[in-house]
Amino acid sequence: MAERRRTDMVLIAFMQAQNCTNYPGSWRHPQGIPDFLSAEHYMRIARTLEEGKFHLAFFDDRLAMPDIFGEDHRLAVQWGIRSVKMDPIPLMTAMGLATTRLGIGGTCTTTYFEPFDVARTFMTLDHMIGGRAAWNVVTSMNDSEARNMGVAEHPDHDLRYDRADEFVEIVLGHWQSWEDDALVVDTRPGGVFAQPDKVHRLDYRGRWYNSRGPFTVPRSKQGQPVIIQAGQSGRGIRFAARWGELVFASYKTLPQARALYRTLKDAVAAEGRNPDLVRIAPPVYPIVGETRAIAEEKRAFADSLARPEDALALLGEVLNIDFAKYGLDDPIGEAVLANMTGQHAIRDRVVQVSGKANPTPRDFIDVSRRGTIHEAPVFCGTPADVADQMEEWYQGEGCDGFVVAATHRPGGYEEFARLVVPELQRRGVFQKEYRGRTLRENLGLPPSVARGRPTMRH
Amino acid sequence: MAERRRTDMVLIAFMQAQNCTNYPGSWRHPQGIPDFLSAEHYMRIARTLEEGKFHLAFFDDRLAMPDIFGEDHRLAVQWGIRSVKMDPIPLMTAMGLATTRLGIGGTCTTTYFEPFDVARTFMTLDHMIGGRAAWNVVTSMNDSEARNMGVAEHPDHDLRYDRADEFVEIVLGHWQSWEDDALVVDTRPGGVFAQPDKVHRLDYRGRWYNSRGPFTVPRSKQGQPVIIQAGQSGRGIRFAARWGELVFASYKTLPQARALYRTLKDAVAAEGRNPDLVRIAPPVYPIVGETRAIAEEKRAFADSLARPEDALALLGEVLNIDFAKYGLDDPIGEAVLANMTGQHAIRDRVVQVSGKANPTPRDFIDVSRRGTIHEAPVFCGTPADVADQMEEWYQGEGCDGFVVAATHRPGGYEEFARLVVPELQRRGVFQKEYRGRTLRENLGLPPSVARGRPTMRH
Repeated sequence: MAERRRTDMVLIAFMQAQNCTNYPGSWRHPQGIPDFLSAEHYMRIARTLEEGKFHLAFFDDRLAMPDIFGEDHRLAVQWGIRSVKMDPIPLMTAMGLATTRLGIGGTCTTTYFEPFDVARTFMTLDHMIGGRAAWNVVTSMNDSEARNMGVAEHPDHDLRYDRADEFVEIVLGHWQSWEDDALVVDTRPGGVFAQPDKVHRLDYRGRWYNSRGPFTVPRSKQGQPVIIQAGQSGRGIRFAARWGELVFASYKTLPQARALYRTLKDAVAAEGRNPDLVRIAPPVYPIVGETRAIAEEKRAFADSLARPEDALALLGEVLNIDFAKYGLDDPIGEAVLANMTGQHAIRDRVVQVSGKANPTPRDFIDVSRRGTIHEAPVFCGTPADVADQMEEWYQGEGCDGFVVAATHRPGGYEEFARLVVPELQRRGVFQKEYRGRTLRENLGLPPSVARGRPTMRH
Repeated sequence: MAERRRTDMVLIAFMQAQNCTNYPGSWRHPQGIPDFLSAEHYMRIARTLEEGKFHLAFFDDRLAMPDIFGEDHRLAVQWGIRSVKMDPIPLMTAMGLATTRLGIGGTCTTTYFEPFDVARTFMTLDHMIGGRAAWNVVTSMNDSEARNMGVAEHPDHDLRYDRADEFVEIVLGHWQSWEDDALVVDTRPGGVFAQPDKVHRLDYRGRWYNSRGPFTVPRSKQGQPVIIQAGQSGRGIRFAARWGELVFASYKTLPQARALYRTLKDAVAAEGRNPDLVRIAPPVYPIVGETRAIAEEKRAFADSLARPEDALALLGEVLNIDFAKYGLDDPIGEAVLANMTGQHAIRDRVVQVSGKANPTPRDFIDVSRRGTIHEAPVFCGTPADVADQMEEWYQGEGCDGFVVAATHRPGGYEEFARLVVPELQRRGVFQKEYRGRTLRENLGLPPSVARGRPTMRH
């Protein structure tokens, strides 16, 4: 590993507006606080993350309950398998109001909404929390979501990204349509509210979306929200490279990480952007204890909270397969494996790790770590052990930071903030204080400047 | 006037997520605080309203900037004519978190969104603020909004309400699809998260909307958000009578108020609902001073802050006419008057009050009180004067309460809370303490009970 000492590791907390963390069954954790339907739950976590100098708390989203398993939602309801999923925006607002430096990001799909509205929501949020908002741009492909949202079927994968390109062009176009110094608010008689030459109408006419403007929200303290992207397929990488300021990329091992990190940075450069200004962060599942033995016991305990059905329900969602059709030890046939849509990397790893051409549902459960889903490493051990593994990835050009999952809430974040963060700070790789007040300042991103007439690229 | 002593007047604050109040030019008011882009602005007002025991703060909404006047937005930008319009949801969240009893309501149109999403947003908000949320259901008809939201043209008036009926059926259906005792959260081994027999899939297939479910948010402390409606045309009255729990109805005089109040209550009864449980409140523009002379001076001053263009820009939006095509003193022809869409009541009153069959733009400005738009009375004078007028309407069966506009922010609400509220409390018509914690409790509405399988009526 090259001795490249870097000091600006980015830490992001992986949040869910729901009853469990990334760990299925985490709602059963005896140290979990079950007030997940209250603002205080999220505000408490926000304060913990800010004490730990996290850059960002980030919410995923899904507009449906898992119900592919057995073609029914009863399982998800009964065992609490992500059966609750709230709108992230009110939770993000609450977390932003409980803090002064922590960035607050959330997912909003381009598939079901109008870009004018999404632009307005995130710019409003950015004002309310003082320039610390981020938008995670995703496209949707889950049939249950489509049926809830009244859409018959989804466009195919690449087409979804073409649509998403237009969507983002409109959002950024509106965000940049008020120039930075447009607002005057001169309350004297004859004084103007804003300079009419500095507020522009977007007049966007695309293949899928039209939006005219003028936009109705001026620029925020950080200009505009930060753009997060998480695509890692071929078309998804181009999309992330074009738009992402913070890119989430899932991988399991450091060699995989290095390869995708390089691919993404090259793709950013190919888009004519500075790769150093795009931060790449994989999800990780840290489990930390005062001793290695405590950490291992914690890990076994966290895993034990999930029922086998939890894993199969969640895996079925991302792979678009109904595991209820098989016995736990029935081999799954080639045709079914080939027809799995969604995250092929998971399927391929199950085949590889199990050593079976036709793995069983139990193999899927075991290899996926009971359905924690992401292609992500578990960093388990003492604070030094966890920091060692994070440093290895970080210094080894596997990433610029991490999206930190929690075994339970709020305790998982508290343990990380109290045990691992001080170790990272001692090593000089993670900040002891925030650089500034806005998320852009804290991520070391260049100021976003609105350049008069909206441009289609940012 | 009948001597009917009532004691449960409802007070609602008329809020806007923008740079001005209902009064155009109010951003110029020297006692206005110009931090309208910050959460603190709205949280400060929320605390003031809660000190004044207001039942509810309510936001209107519009997905566009006024730009019909001269077919350009430059005027709106330059003179701050509602040129800022933010998403109400983050502001509502902030106000709810700054208070413990105040209800928080906001407008969301049925025209551009999916009901599953709107249901999720408002139910999430309701959880975050402890059961105090309300949704104002509106349909949209503004061309500028349509062009921002990528819609070619609006369906006609009655069709919009037919669509809105389906929209509300879905939202209420999802809200009632988790039974009240569905959630268990038994964290012991083998314990269930929620009872699978008590979470139902809506499976709604309508003419305009489909939504399957299951919904992903359980019931809130008040069961579900309160429904606000403001229609007052024939079709709008039927819609309000069917769905509204709180109904906003604009009128200018007490005789008009009495007539519409009776019509609305009868329409509620015709829908098989208890008219006593539906509260009707008109917008009012109170201006209060320590003396009558002070109040009159304040009124003149508030009116003076608006430029003539402000009124014409805002009137043009609601009447769908470009006043820029006329000189200030040019009579407007019959054909143009006849083609005005939107609020015919305003046009008709200008004709009536001016005494001219062909009123001029100046007549529109004068009669509309410089564009404050609503068909609403100004209650001006000492605290006793204002309370007298409110009592006359309230005891005279013109309304069950009021939607209180402010000449400036936050001062307009502060003056009302400190001068008029104590007077109303002394008279025994307005609460000195909140009845309960949720908005339903505080409005005296019956508990909302989810009745298993969703029904299409609530």
